[in-house]
Parts: sequence; structure tokens; C-alpha cells
Amino acid sequence: MIRDEPGYLGRLAMALGDEGVRIGEIVRVRASGGYFVRDLELYLDSDQQLEAILKRVEKLEGIVVQAVLDPVLELHRGGKIRTRTTVPLETIGDLRKVYTPGVAAVCNEIVAHPEAVWDYTALGRTVAIVTNGTAILGLGNIGVHAGLPVMEGKAVLLDRLVGLSGIPILIPTREARTFAETVIQISPSFGAIKIEDVAAPECFEIEERLDRELPIPVMHDDQHGTAVVVLAALLNATEETGERLKHLTVGLIGLGAAGTGIGRLLQSFGVKHLVGTDINQEAMRRFEKSGGEPMDLAGVMREGDVIVATTGVPGLIPANLVRERQIVLALSNPNPEIRPQVALEAGARFAVDGRFVNNALGFPGIFRGALDARAREINDPMKIAAARTIAQFAEPGEIVPPLLDLAVHEAVASAVEKAARTSGAAPHAEEEPR
Amino acid sequence: MIRDEPGYLGRLAMALGDEGVRIGEIVRVRASGGYFVRDLELYLDSDQQLEAILKRVEKLEGIVVQAVLDPVLELHRGGKIRTRTTVPLETIGDLRKVYTPGVAAVCNEIVAHPEAVWDYTALGRTVAIVTNGTAILGLGNIGVHAGLPVMEGKAVLLDRLVGLSGIPILIPTREARTFAETVIQISPSFGAIKIEDVAAPECFEIEERLDRELPIPVMHDDQHGTAVVVLAALLNATEETGERLKHLTVGLIGLGAAGTGIGRLLQSFGVKHLVGTDINQEAMRRFEKSGGEPMDLAGVMREGDVIVATTGVPGLIPANLVRERQIVLALSNPNPEIRPQVALEAGARFAVDGRFVNNALGFPGIFRGALDARAREINDPMKIAAARTIAQFAEPGEIVPPLLDLAVHEAVASAVEKAARTSGAAPHAEEEPR
Repeated sequence: MIRDEPGYLGRLAMALGDEGVRIGEIVRVRASGGYFVRDLELYLDSDQQLEAILKRVEKLEGIVVQAVLDPVLELHRGGKIRTRTTVPLETIGDLRKVYTPGVAAVCNEIVAHPEAVWDYTALGRTVAIVTNGTAILGLGNIGVHAGLPVMEGKAVLLDRLVGLSGIPILIPTREARTFAETVIQISPSFGAIKIEDVAAPECFEIEERLDRELPIPVMHDDQHGTAVVVLAALLNATEETGERLKHLTVGLIGLGAAGTGIGRLLQSFGVKHLVGTDINQEAMRRFEKSGGEPMDLAGVMREGDVIVATTGVPGLIPANLVRERQIVLALSNPNPEIRPQVALEAGARFAVDGRFVNNALGFPGIFRGALDARAREINDPMKIAAARTIAQFAEPGEIVPPLLDLAVHEAVASAVEKAARTSGAAPHAEEEPR
Repeated sequence: MIRDEPGYLGRLAMALGDEGVRIGEIVRVRASGGYFVRDLELYLDSDQQLEAILKRVEKLEGIVVQAVLDPVLELHRGGKIRTRTTVPLETIGDLRKVYTPGVAAVCNEIVAHPEAVWDYTALGRTVAIVTNGTAILGLGNIGVHAGLPVMEGKAVLLDRLVGLSGIPILIPTREARTFAETVIQISPSFGAIKIEDVAAPECFEIEERLDRELPIPVMHDDQHGTAVVVLAALLNATEETGERLKHLTVGLIGLGAAGTGIGRLLQSFGVKHLVGTDINQEAMRRFEKSGGEPMDLAGVMREGDVIVATTGVPGLIPANLVRERQIVLALSNPNPEIRPQVALEAGARFAVDGRFVNNALGFPGIFRGALDARAREINDPMKIAAARTIAQFAEPGEIVPPLLDLAVHEAVASAVEKAARTSGAAPHAEEEPR
């Protein structure tokens, strides 16, 4: 509320300017007893800055702050997803087809031919997004409800990029066994399972068990979705430098879910020499057991032709450890282990952060392709096919294509579907039921 | 394929007519080597009739059947529901709000204020539709996958009638404890739980435990959804006869999930005298324990001023047992215990079957109202408020309003929301967080 007399708006704008705040749109909402109510859009850097402004504005005579709204929060109000209907329901005739008595014919068809559930329900388009809330973004173990906006965000991507239905499933337990058994119990509800933001080491046991016991595709996105996009990025980065990725030493900084997934996919692709480091000794042992060479941070930076950092620790890599012509992927969001500009100035040949190497380039097409093939699993040939396709779609000079290019996701889906059939993860087209 | 010479289509049409089949649309699809491929829409009564036609047509020279498609099946192809997005995702700016890094602000808001999960996610609009596949429609224990089309049908109704997101959750176990514990594990994913098509007696234990342990609304639709609509129908039927429902004897034929739910709600409404019968002795004991008087079918028909049958046994009630001026609700779908016309001819005052007393009149508004109130449960006052509202919307001469009238569902939702607050199932509006 700004007093409707000359000078008051000016004093407010000056005060905001003094605090280093840029002003965007100003909308006059209504007049009210000698005041104007206005919406001011402000660009702030931190909560501290907001507090400073509020304190300052409080002292201004003739100015009253009625509400502080965050446009990102407002966008999320009511959530980002809904279950919607794909059939008409206008008349009693529609109702009798969609619901009783018509639906009984569909039930009976599935009783007679169990495979028909894939034809006459949404099962083949439905992906459970399962989490225990222990490793949400870079925020850590914040719980399932605080993680739900992220799960809904993944569902948004599945819908918009490849037309799949993501269903957030929140299971608030740290016990790998309870988590896995709960998912197994409800697994007939879904065509595929996307494990999301589950912390290491539980994520390994959970994925391994679900993958073994369930006849549908299962993928822990933080391991393999990330790995696929990293492989794509490295294929393009090494193509430009004329090197062959297989012959390079890859250094992994951070051996949690993402680091482990990246290491395994690179090995499967043919990379022989992996070095890595983590502050967690169990992670180091796991890495060594799977054929990697554990060492300290300085060692990894010295040995690695390629560095992939997934620690969640901003600024972990000092510029003086960067080697000439190194390829550096510092993937922690929102703040990387080393800013790309800093790495490039220190001599790196390529340097990017997690904004560019986003696993959302991979998982939508991977799940769509696996479901289209009715694959029983998501195996390494399928992931490598996805990575090669993503790499091919990058513009010259870029290492990955833009995330919102639907053609990329469609091509990834086809490549994964084809790889599922040729690798034996799915029946060949000829064997398929019509 | 019909040979493209005079007389062939005529011979086919004659043959279909001889078999008693009506022909709907005929669409010419394409010409192909001296034949026309045509789509013929046929109205058939049974699979036997279809077989007879196919046998007959097979003998006709110049006619080849390429495929037999069922339009109801075709309507269900690919399923009836999808997860859709309610926010834009066109630009990188959108993406940065919906997904990382913007979404982190929403997560942090929920960490700081756990109740904010109801504001900034879809939780408050999301209803799990949980089943073990043991009592699907009148079809019985056909399994979770064969039951999935019904669960999707319920989701269609929730979406179209009240804008809620239904999520089918299939848990293939007969063990009440495993079922309940699985639902409890995943319950943070949903705003409410709709138990669906779970057979008695497991359904009672499951509902009782979920209702007790979960802080969100739980309702077994087959018990209480049906009960609400039956109560609405009886309120209108008795109003026309000038009787007071509380003072009548109600006879329940079938004491499974639906019969039990109906009996309990009628008792809570004030009905003093309940008689009932079931072939299952455990059901009879349960009924007696809850204050009903068990007897045989003839006894119930003799004692009951109102008869409510929910046995799933078509034609169970012989016409000669119907009493003058009885109110008869024979609810088994698709074939009732006694056809309304037969009951009316035998002297009944009112007689309807399950097509009119459909629980889909009740559950959508009940869940919407309970969620709007953020109720912790769905209690009897809420159900009775729903029933009274449904009753009020019936046209004169009808006992319930039309299912697809959105105004009914909106009114039920408001009545239930209000009853939730006045009955203490939800905070009063004044106590509510903004």
C-alpha cells in the first residue's frame, strides 16, 4: 500500500535501489482510502536481502507491505500434476461404456488374455516415481513430503517430453528391505519403476532387488539417468578433441549414487581406467571392488583426463588442481564443485556444470523406449544407445542438445526400443503380440 | 472384405438379419483386388450370437471377415487416464521454475512449514484407489490386472465429476495385514485413500486399521459409497410414502461389504430395526453383533418394510415373496436379485436396481468435500450430509438425481466439507491455516 501522494512511490523505489534490488513489473491493483495497492515484482538474490528490504521499507512512512509472494511458490500452488481422462464422459452412453456395465467386457478380456492389460489399460504408459526422500536434489534427507515437488517435477517432464504418466510414490523409510518390498507389493500398478532421490548405499540394494524380482523396467535415475547424459556429453567432448573415450582415464569425484552409476556405465562402454575418490570409506571400497582405483582428490585431478564430480559440495575443486586440456564435468546442483569459467581459465579444454548435463535429457526417452518395447529391464546396451542418440543431437560446439527439444526424446525412445529388442531385454517385433 | 459385384453385400445383410442381428453404420474403408473392405457396426446380444454369425458368414462365398472389434474394448485401448501437467513447460525459464533450480525453493518451504505440502503439491487433490482385485464388480476375485479397467473408471469419475486425481494402486494379496501395511507405507503419497472392490471379510479389517492409523480420509467405497446412495434413495422413497425411515424395518439381503456398510449407516441415521440374511454364517454373526436380527430370506422379505439386496445373485428374490407396498432396492450389477418391473407387478411401492442406485453418485463429492476440509476421516455425519444432499437433488418422482449432473457433486462436496467441520473431523474454518 503506497500513499497516493507525490513522492511516495519514488521514495520506495529509491530505497529498493539502495538495497541493490532491481524492480520488474509494477501493477496497480486497486485504490483504497488514500492509498494505492500495487504489485511490485522484485529480483532478489537471497532471503537476507528480502529481510533487509522489509526492515528498511517498514521505516518508510506511507508505505505498508501487505504480502510477500514468491512467484515460484505461486506457480507450484495446488501442485503441478493431475490425473486426467482420455475418454469422453458426457452422456449416460459414455458412462455405460467407461464404467459399469461396459467395463466388465474389458475385465473379462484381461481375465481371458492376461497380456491384454497392456492394451486396454494405461499400464504401459505409467511410471512410478518412488522415493524415500533421503537425497532430494542437493538438499539431502529432507523427507518425502518436502521432496514431493521434485517428484511432481519429474512427472511434468515425463508428460511433456514423452507422454508418459508419472506417479509420485512416497515411502518414508530408510530400510532398503522395507522400501523394496513395498514397491514389489504395488508394482502391478505400473509399467515401469523410476527410483528417485534415494541415498546411497540403500539405493544400490533397492535397485538390485527390484531389477531382479520385477518383470518390468526399473531404473534409479540418479545413477543411470545421470550416467547416460554424462556418457553423451563425454562422447561429444572427446570427439572434438579427437580422443577416444575408451582410452582415457576417467576420474570420479564423489562415489555416491551418481558417481557409481557413471563409473559402471563407462566401464560397460569400454573405459578401462577409472580413478575415484569419496570421503566415505564404504564408497571407496565399493568402487575398488567394481574395478576402480581409489585415491585422494589431488590424485584424481592429476590422473584423470576426464573429471566427473558429483559430490554436492560447492567449490570443492580448487582451480590449481585443474590440468591443462582436462574435460571437467562439475555436476552438483545448484552450485558446482568448480565453476566452468574458473576451470576453463585454469586450462580445462571443456568445462560444464549440472545445468547442462541434466539427467532429464535421458530418463524420459529411456522409459518411453523401454515401455514401447515392453522390455523386462533397462540394460546397458539400452543406456548406451540412449547416450549415443543424445550425443548425436547436440549442435556443433555444444556437448548435449537442448532439454526441451522433443525430437531428441523421440529419437532416444526409438533407439532404446530398438536396443531393447536387439539386446534381448524385450521380445523381437515379430514375436510380439499384435 | 466383400466382393465388389452386385448381390454380395445383400447376401451378407440377409444372413445377418436371419441371425437376428441389427446393422448400424457401414463405412467403406478401401478397395482391394475386386473386394471392398467395409466396417460394419453390428448390435449383438451375446458371444454365442457372434459365433453363430461368424460360422454362417464363413460359408458365404465372396465374404471374408478380417477382424472383429469390440467398440467398448477399442474405447479402452491405451487406458482411460493419464498424468497431465498443470503448469507451462515451453521455455528454459519455465523449466527452471518447475524443475531445478526453482523447485528447491518449494522444497525448502515445506521443510520449514510441513503443512505447506498441502498448498504447493497436488497432495490435497490426490486419491489412491487401492484394491487387491478380490471383488471386482460382480465378477469376483479376478485379480488386480483384470480389475484395473474398473479402477481407471473410478479415476475417470473423480476427474470428470469433482476434479480429483485418482491413482489406481494394485496390491495383489488376500492378507488383510499385508495389504493394510503396504497402504500405510505409501500413504504419504496421497490426500485420501479409497478402498475399492476388496472382498469381505478382509475389507473390514483393512478399513478399520487404515482409518485408525492414518491421519487422512479413508473410505471403502463398496461399503460406504453404496450406503450413502442407498440412504439418499430411501429418504426420497419414504418421503413419497409419507413414512419416516427411522421407524421402518429394513431388511438386508446380503451382508457382505455393501450390506454391512448400508446397515451401519442406517443405524447411525436412526433406523432401529434391521433384519438381514446371508449364506455366510460369519456374516450373520457379524450382523447380529452389530445389532441386526439375522433370519432367512423369507423372513427378511416378510419383516422388511424396505428391502436392500446386495448379494450378486441374479433373480434370488422370487416375486411371490414381495410384500404389498414394499420398497425394494435390488442392487446387484449387472443383473439384480429381482427385476424392478417384476417387483412392482408383485405389489412393491418402489423398486429399482443398481443402475439407478449407483455409488458414483456419492464417492466423488464425499472425497472432494473431505479433502477440501482437510478432514482426518470420513465419519457418519459426513456420509449422512452427503445422502441428504443427493436426496434433495432428485427430480420429483425420481429417487436419486442423474449421475452426470455436476451440480449434485458440487453440492455434496460442500455439504460434506461443512459436516466435516461441524462434526470435528476437520479444523473449523477459523482455525484453519490460511
